[in-house]
Amino acid sequence: MDLKTLNQSEPAALLTELGGLYEHSPWIVEGALAQRPFASLAAFKRACFEVLARATPEAQRALICAHPELAGKAMVAQQLTAESTDEQSRAGLTHCSPEEFATLQRLNTAYGQRFGWPFILAVRGPRGLGLSRSEIISTFERRLDGHPDFEFQECLRQIHRIAELRLAEKFGEDLSAGEQVWDWAEQLAVHSEADDALTVTYMSPAHRACARKLAGWMQSCGFDEVQIDALGNVVGRYFGSDPSAPLLMTGSHYDTVRNGGRYDGRLGILVAMATVQGMKALGHRPRHGLELVAFAEEEAQRFPATFLAASALVGRFEPQWLAQQDAQSVTMAEALQAAGHGAQPSAQLDSIAALQRDPKQYLGFVEVHIEQGPVLDAAGLPLGVVSSINGSHRYTGEIVGQASHAGTTPMGAGRRDAAAAAAELVLQVERIATQLPEAVGTVGMLEVPGGSINVVPGRCRFSLDLRAPRDAVRDRLRDEVLHALDAICERRGLHYSLRPTLSIDAAPSHPDWQARWEAAVQRLGLPVHRMPSGAGHDAMKMHEILPQAMLFVRGGNAGISHNPLETVSAHDAQLAVEAFEILWNSL
Amino acid sequence: MDLKTLNQSEPAALLTELGGLYEHSPWIVEGALAQRPFASLAAFKRACFEVLARATPEAQRALICAHPELAGKAMVAQQLTAESTDEQSRAGLTHCSPEEFATLQRLNTAYGQRFGWPFILAVRGPRGLGLSRSEIISTFERRLDGHPDFEFQECLRQIHRIAELRLAEKFGEDLSAGEQVWDWAEQLAVHSEADDALTVTYMSPAHRACARKLAGWMQSCGFDEVQIDALGNVVGRYFGSDPSAPLLMTGSHYDTVRNGGRYDGRLGILVAMATVQGMKALGHRPRHGLELVAFAEEEAQRFPATFLAASALVGRFEPQWLAQQDAQSVTMAEALQAAGHGAQPSAQLDSIAALQRDPKQYLGFVEVHIEQGPVLDAAGLPLGVVSSINGSHRYTGEIVGQASHAGTTPMGAGRRDAAAAAAELVLQVERIATQLPEAVGTVGMLEVPGGSINVVPGRCRFSLDLRAPRDAVRDRLRDEVLHALDAICERRGLHYSLRPTLSIDAAPSHPDWQARWEAAVQRLGLPVHRMPSGAGHDAMKMHEILPQAMLFVRGGNAGISHNPLETVSAHDAQLAVEAFEILWNSL
Repeated sequence: MDLKTLNQSEPAALLTELGGLYEHSPWIVEGALAQRPFASLAAFKRACFEVLARATPEAQRALICAHPELAGKAMVAQQLTAESTDEQSRAGLTHCSPEEFATLQRLNTAYGQRFGWPFILAVRGPRGLGLSRSEIISTFERRLDGHPDFEFQECLRQIHRIAELRLAEKFGEDLSAGEQVWDWAEQLAVHSEADDALTVTYMSPAHRACARKLAGWMQSCGFDEVQIDALGNVVGRYFGSDPSAPLLMTGSHYDTVRNGGRYDGRLGILVAMATVQGMKALGHRPRHGLELVAFAEEEAQRFPATFLAASALVGRFEPQWLAQQDAQSVTMAEALQAAGHGAQPSAQLDSIAALQRDPKQYLGFVEVHIEQGPVLDAAGLPLGVVSSINGSHRYTGEIVGQASHAGTTPMGAGRRDAAAAAAELVLQVERIATQLPEAVGTVGMLEVPGGSINVVPGRCRFSLDLRAPRDAVRDRLRDEVLHALDAICERRGLHYSLRPTLSIDAAPSHPDWQARWEAAVQRLGLPVHRMPSGAGHDAMKMHEILPQAMLFVRGGNAGISHNPLETVSAHDAQLAVEAFEILWNSL
Repeated sequence: MDLKTLNQSEPAALLTELGGLYEHSPWIVEGALAQRPFASLAAFKRACFEVLARATPEAQRALICAHPELAGKAMVAQQLTAESTDEQSRAGLTHCSPEEFATLQRLNTAYGQRFGWPFILAVRGPRGLGLSRSEIISTFERRLDGHPDFEFQECLRQIHRIAELRLAEKFGEDLSAGEQVWDWAEQLAVHSEADDALTVTYMSPAHRACARKLAGWMQSCGFDEVQIDALGNVVGRYFGSDPSAPLLMTGSHYDTVRNGGRYDGRLGILVAMATVQGMKALGHRPRHGLELVAFAEEEAQRFPATFLAASALVGRFEPQWLAQQDAQSVTMAEALQAAGHGAQPSAQLDSIAALQRDPKQYLGFVEVHIEQGPVLDAAGLPLGVVSSINGSHRYTGEIVGQASHAGTTPMGAGRRDAAAAAAELVLQVERIATQLPEAVGTVGMLEVPGGSINVVPGRCRFSLDLRAPRDAVRDRLRDEVLHALDAICERRGLHYSLRPTLSIDAAPSHPDWQARWEAAVQRLGLPVHRMPSGAGHDAMKMHEILPQAMLFVRGGNAGISHNPLETVSAHDAQLAVEAFEILWNSL
């Protein structure tokens, strides 16, 4: 099969070939074919997604119910479709131990009783979702705990993923760049400070090992210059065909949060590496050269300072950061020295100052990053174009009332319940943020310190995280939330304290650069989805000296991030590499 | 002055004498005199309270502002009223150290700026509120933190207390029983497990010292029989004039919570002791004898079992309780043995079984207890009659959603915020409890475990404490709250777990015994105020075999309890002794 056949053959013939992409449900492919021609396989998959999204809940449910149980009775009785037999066999489910088999039967029964449909999981495929039996069982147990509405949607997402894998096989799809990215991410995740989790904090041995591995890979890919700089950034340059033309800069970070995921930050490094690897193999050089920066620090896990790597590039590295201490009282200067980056803070500062880039030598900055949110996964879109990186205000606070006996203090004005006031605040934050365009507001920390079951809370601690892609909206969100807090405490006869902990301005994408990402996504046959970035990124710092725009890649598992469940499929990584290549070549 | 003079003299002459009870504000006494005759001084004070309660906020404020600052300019300039000069001098404020004086000036200034009126505190008087300079300063600092509405009412309460103290002096009021109760409470509070707090848990050395002291006092008071029983209860019997007549039983507990108050439980023991002391001194014996039980345990601080002392009296002591362990893994049996209560659990159990009372030998059970709530203090009433001890349902629970990135998870259905759901629950509990008669509902524990400022809460733990004086209302409260929890989680796509931790039926007062307390309160010239008991008490357990009713005594500081600030005035203790005597004599 190829794209031309897909676009030109008789529907009946195609249905014979492709009708089984969706289990016992040829109507999905049939509906999608009405949208021919397709610019790409991705466009065809998108058409299938839209057919299913428009279907009635009953039809969606029937599709889910058309699937067999994992390692269930149908497998044992050899009554599966050819596709399912192949998938369950490759996942090793036909070779379960008796214990594993018993566990899966118990889970199948419990799941069926809870949800009324079979558990669906894409269990095999080119890298990115080839799950072991124990991974299958732990995913099963986790999802058994979910809400039915969410689980229903997750089953539909898994069905699309199964169809994508079946389709790739039929088309002999070239996913080599995406699979390379996926393999690199796996190999980089070998280095960790923790045995059972991925934790790579600034200048730890695992962090230095990652830097060395990235530098080695860049050299193998064909970068013309590779170095690890004074802050541990790994910088690779691939020269353009015009040596006098300014460079495109790209990059993201390779440090992680504690118990983090394999793609946060790293994806943006690996996608650029795969792109250069592909060009070098073909002997291709775009007019403008590329500077790829694998930023050494973005997550502020070991030292309080954040974005310290990008800060140096924009000339904003603060000398006093070198005196910051980690939890073991090791200063940043000592950590750098131990890693071989300069013996004295003064020498270190000189080397760090030299990292400042001259904007005139660069065209702009682009960053590819996993979305770290549920938007693209829910919309069935592999890629999204970032319109702005959110600005934010953060606070920690405490509401103070009067602790009193839960039994003897009547309801009404005599109660001065700090938790009830905080509860009102939580719901006001939710209401106000929902009403403002693209704003998000979160009370992530909430606690009655030393609370007792039979005591009216006298104190309640909380945090506020308020963000929006435009500073005017962010400030309005803050003003309305703080006004609500005032009003709540006034009405209830309480008072509060509030401490600002962070305030960052929004970084809107440069219109020209955002348009370049949009053009690349369109070239891939995909709809353009513009979205704000709720999280901060290195691009936010580079924004201070260069025009910037970001590309988001869908994360699986509803976009879960800062978590071992973070995942990107090889298919989506492949599309990211292709989009990056299109953008670079377009300059 | 005496009551007859108060009831019969010319108002003008009385005003000359009593117009200064309320600082520069004779209109209050003038208004109260219109209500003559008074059955008691308490009734006159009540009339004054009502005049001020009916006055306009402006008049109330003017009264507050008519008071001098504590150790303020007026004191230094010797411009105080005679009464104020006497009070501030007796409190030692005229002998402040330069540091104390500077502190008080600073506090006066800050208080005036915050509230716009002078700080008012009854600083001297017969026991119960004779404050040291350091106590005055710490009270000042605490109240500076309060809400203006609350502080305004607290100033009015302090003004009534000042008037009460001035009046007692003019009348040479006999408060000896109340002062005796107050002194005993002080002397009992000497025994504690903590250096800087009052903590007396079951069978600790402090607890045993309290038992010995109570037994000694009972003997001195003239009880005919006194013993410490197999569980540490201190039991005193005062024979009646009719040896064949059944006994009145009374009592309360002498253990405390950690960092507790001096009156919780103990007041009910001491009031009965003072009553017997008074009768013995006069050689008076009511027809029915009295059995006073100082219960050894009610607060469940050391071992999980609660009401274990009262349980033995009603024949419900559970043998397995002896195997319960404290935080140091000492069993209850070992603790009893170490305290000299039987060498073996089997022998202990025999002795405990022998504590069971035969209801036929008793008329009923009455208990005097500090209210532990703000109701009587707010209403300006020294005594309240309990209509029922609340039944309760308690739960601990957890709402489970999905932790996700606070920046990248848009508002709306994609957020599965466990804290927002818990916030709704908190407000629903408040709303539902407010709508049901005499019900109270509290979420005392509330926590996002491991919450982060930038993470949407995936989990939120909470507790529920639901009470009402009638079981039907208590159950309706529970049903509506649990229904709300269901609906919130269903709507938000979350789930929850819930664990019941306690369920106690309400103990309505026996109508005959409640009527006896009401009659006693009326005899004292006070209005009858019926109220539920929000807290549990020993009477709740005795309810299982005897008719019971409780009398509540006002707690100062807005009824704060389970706290060192818990307080009862000698005036109110005196009234409690008089009420107890009236009730007993009426049988």
